Amino acid sequence: MPYPYHQINEKDIKYFKTVVPSRRMVCREDIKEEYFHDEMPEYGVYVPDLFIEAVSKEEVSAIMRYSYENNIPVTARGAGTGLAGGATCKYGGIMLSLMKMNRILEIDNENLTITVEPGALLSEVADAAKSAGLFYPPDPGERTASIGGTVITNAGGMRAVRYGVTRDYVRAIEAVLPDGEIVNFSSNVVKNTTGYALKDLVIGSEGTLCILTKVTLRLIPAPKFTWSIVVPYDEIETCIETVPKLLQMSFIPTAIEFLETELLDIIERHLNKSFPHRSANAYLIVMFDAVSREEIEKMTNEAAKVCIEAGAQDALICNSDERSASVWSVRAAVLEGMKADSIAQEECDVVVPRPRIADFVKAAKNIGKKYGIRIMTVGHAGDGNIHTEMLRDKHLSEKQWKSNTKACLKELYALSKELGGQLSGEHGIGNGRLEFLEDFIGDRMYRLFQSVKLAFDEKNILNPGKLITFEKTIKEDVLNDR
Amino acid sequence: MPYPYHQINEKDIKYFKTVVPSRRMVCREDIKEEYFHDEMPEYGVYVPDLFIEAVSKEEVSAIMRYSYENNIPVTARGAGTGLAGGATCKYGGIMLSLMKMNRILEIDNENLTITVEPGALLSEVADAAKSAGLFYPPDPGERTASIGGTVITNAGGMRAVRYGVTRDYVRAIEAVLPDGEIVNFSSNVVKNTTGYALKDLVIGSEGTLCILTKVTLRLIPAPKFTWSIVVPYDEIETCIETVPKLLQMSFIPTAIEFLETELLDIIERHLNKSFPHRSANAYLIVMFDAVSREEIEKMTNEAAKVCIEAGAQDALICNSDERSASVWSVRAAVLEGMKADSIAQEECDVVVPRPRIADFVKAAKNIGKKYGIRIMTVGHAGDGNIHTEMLRDKHLSEKQWKSNTKACLKELYALSKELGGQLSGEHGIGNGRLEFLEDFIGDRMYRLFQSVKLAFDEKNILNPGKLITFEKTIKEDVLNDR
Repeated sequence: MPYPYHQINEKDIKYFKTVVPSRRMVCREDIKEEYFHDEMPEYGVYVPDLFIEAVSKEEVSAIMRYSYENNIPVTARGAGTGLAGGATCKYGGIMLSLMKMNRILEIDNENLTITVEPGALLSEVADAAKSAGLFYPPDPGERTASIGGTVITNAGGMRAVRYGVTRDYVRAIEAVLPDGEIVNFSSNVVKNTTGYALKDLVIGSEGTLCILTKVTLRLIPAPKFTWSIVVPYDEIETCIETVPKLLQMSFIPTAIEFLETELLDIIERHLNKSFPHRSANAYLIVMFDAVSREEIEKMTNEAAKVCIEAGAQDALICNSDERSASVWSVRAAVLEGMKADSIAQEECDVVVPRPRIADFVKAAKNIGKKYGIRIMTVGHAGDGNIHTEMLRDKHLSEKQWKSNTKACLKELYALSKELGGQLSGEHGIGNGRLEFLEDFIGDRMYRLFQSVKLAFDEKNILNPGKLITFEKTIKEDVLNDR
Repeated sequence: MPYPYHQINEKDIKYFKTVVPSRRMVCREDIKEEYFHDEMPEYGVYVPDLFIEAVSKEEVSAIMRYSYENNIPVTARGAGTGLAGGATCKYGGIMLSLMKMNRILEIDNENLTITVEPGALLSEVADAAKSAGLFYPPDPGERTASIGGTVITNAGGMRAVRYGVTRDYVRAIEAVLPDGEIVNFSSNVVKNTTGYALKDLVIGSEGTLCILTKVTLRLIPAPKFTWSIVVPYDEIETCIETVPKLLQMSFIPTAIEFLETELLDIIERHLNKSFPHRSANAYLIVMFDAVSREEIEKMTNEAAKVCIEAGAQDALICNSDERSASVWSVRAAVLEGMKADSIAQEECDVVVPRPRIADFVKAAKNIGKKYGIRIMTVGHAGDGNIHTEMLRDKHLSEKQWKSNTKACLKELYALSKELGGQLSGEHGIGNGRLEFLEDFIGDRMYRLFQSVKLAFDEKNILNPGKLITFEKTIKEDVLNDR
């Protein structure tokens, strides 16, 4: 490993000015604080040495070629909406923003694809698809994410139950390798067995293998109706046990979310949003998409029947797109509600086999109690991805909170592993979960990750210290002090 | 590279006898000829030094550990139905059959998954799913393939239009690394962002990165009706131009295949199978799955209308599972028919963007003519994967045939690349397409493939010389002479 890296100096800046005009470069002292961290400052605050906005793959290539030769770390950045501390300059160096590479290049109606630059927002991509009468299904909630960010983190979201995750929509990737070479991973084809599936490896690699400069995404015909059902339950077990039954129907629900009643209290109290039912302990919200009114009626009626047979109190059908949207706006307010209701938050993003969700939720609550941490679970019940939110109340000092959340997370991860789950379902490892990775996947797999990283980036200059690290001895505090 | 490899001797055999009983080991001179090649002897005939049948991951692990320490090449083998010369011992060493590891371990109705050992046949897996009321969609045609083989080659097949390829159904993989370590790639979860997507990299890696010992596959609710339409056209262009229109409907066809009339002649002549329509020049056969009679009627009627509006002569609805199956049995006879109608065959498995199929087919015919090779195209039109069959007629000597097919393939691959396609859509690189790979993907990508191979297998002992090679100087003839 070539650590310590070369510290950017006047000569380097002079070179970079031959690649990009000065107005798209900012030096260390003038870089805005928002670029020191992503949506989770808890997972790392680091000051870049140089901030550059690229507008073309040629610029990205030139910057990488020079950085490779001179051993300068580079971190590509989209909208900075990540939740793992991923797009931060942990070892200083260059923060390379791709947000000015934001063109929607082509919508291909015959091939049902859209080709875009990485800095286009997810909302812009979804809207462009929509105006062509098509549909881009992945929706991780944060629609101001850059599309490149969603690809490089393999963003998930609620609609994964029916439509899958971002990975399932990426047809082709154009990218710059650490040495500056511009390459293509696959092309606009539906099937491909031309050697190793590097496109699939790059998806979810969190900016540690290459820098995206263009992506081609699959679109599907747009559904015409989106309705939902709200299903109240006396007990969380019955609620969760309904999930496999819903998945055995002859059609697949778009989303199956699970909500605890305490969360609804919080959202009502802080955000003044109301939910159509309030007297139960646990709820499922189930979304359906269809192309005809007839079909959506059939879907929601059959699902309602399945839920009631499985022990639900009732099943309220939200029989219009508007009614459905209002229910989901409550679901969307969860994070904001919890932020308003606590001093600090930490999040566990495990995924477990779907039949084990109830076991996880119950055990997680007990683990939280042990550490004086309030635990709220907001489940993507349809795919076993349980966002276990840990809330700090005022009885915990900051120091206690830090050590207790760490101990609590360790137990939650061990629990997930015991239940056959994984460490992260959709937010990724980044910087925030890195300290838990090796324990979770084991030493041999960790070394395999390291080898794969070096196969792409033998100098470890691309977003170093994220997803995988080689520097066990560097103290986080030292890095924070940079 | 540790080439040349260690030649297996008495001492090694003595060790292997401590791992597996003698009845599951066969030495060089007694190995059956069927193990010298896969379904395509054209792509390599090589004699293994030792044939071993493993029954457990522990045996696989012990064999790999010893082979790793002693620099012995190992090639894992399933049913040997591959079409790329993949499961052959190009550098001698051990052929490790997994066909006795063939248990169906679990069908999980709550999770909608099936867990099996790699030697179970695809047909057995599909049948087991069916008897649980579920459906395993991937169907590459060859149902006597081992399930492990379909995973490690990412097998495709006709139903990919609606259901995707094997990759889309693999939840978890247990495998043995070249050094003998047993590892798990993901687990039985729906989403996973716990570091690099190595499960996805392993899928389609053609036995060059690890040896599968267990796979967990996703199942879906079984459709209840499968009907088809047969659509005759005057011209191939109109025929192909219908495809994107069929894909823009609000539901997705299960399969869209394209057939030329000459192929129907051949099948009728040699195999005495008849097709419901015979006076057109080109045909589409389109398959649909549905859960109700109402739905399947709606699908086939709407699709028929789309085809006729797009210029088809007619659209015959095969309105029962039986009628539909009889049409597809003609399609399934294509390879057999061509074998009966020519002295030798070679196949090109390119995939192109769907709107470019007609361009490819027309140009391919002309390229064939130039070399005196009869070219038949059998297209997975729904996914752009065109099996371009090259047939040898008696006017070509064997030598001419060899050099002409090579020249013809070079042009076909260049054409595919020009049209934005790929070298292989579903059969893989193996040994047979290896000589064309570097030209196709470029030098930098080839080196990246090499690095990825070494990240898993730094001694290059796992199925060496397939998908990727490090030994440019070794002549194929020398290898054939082993």
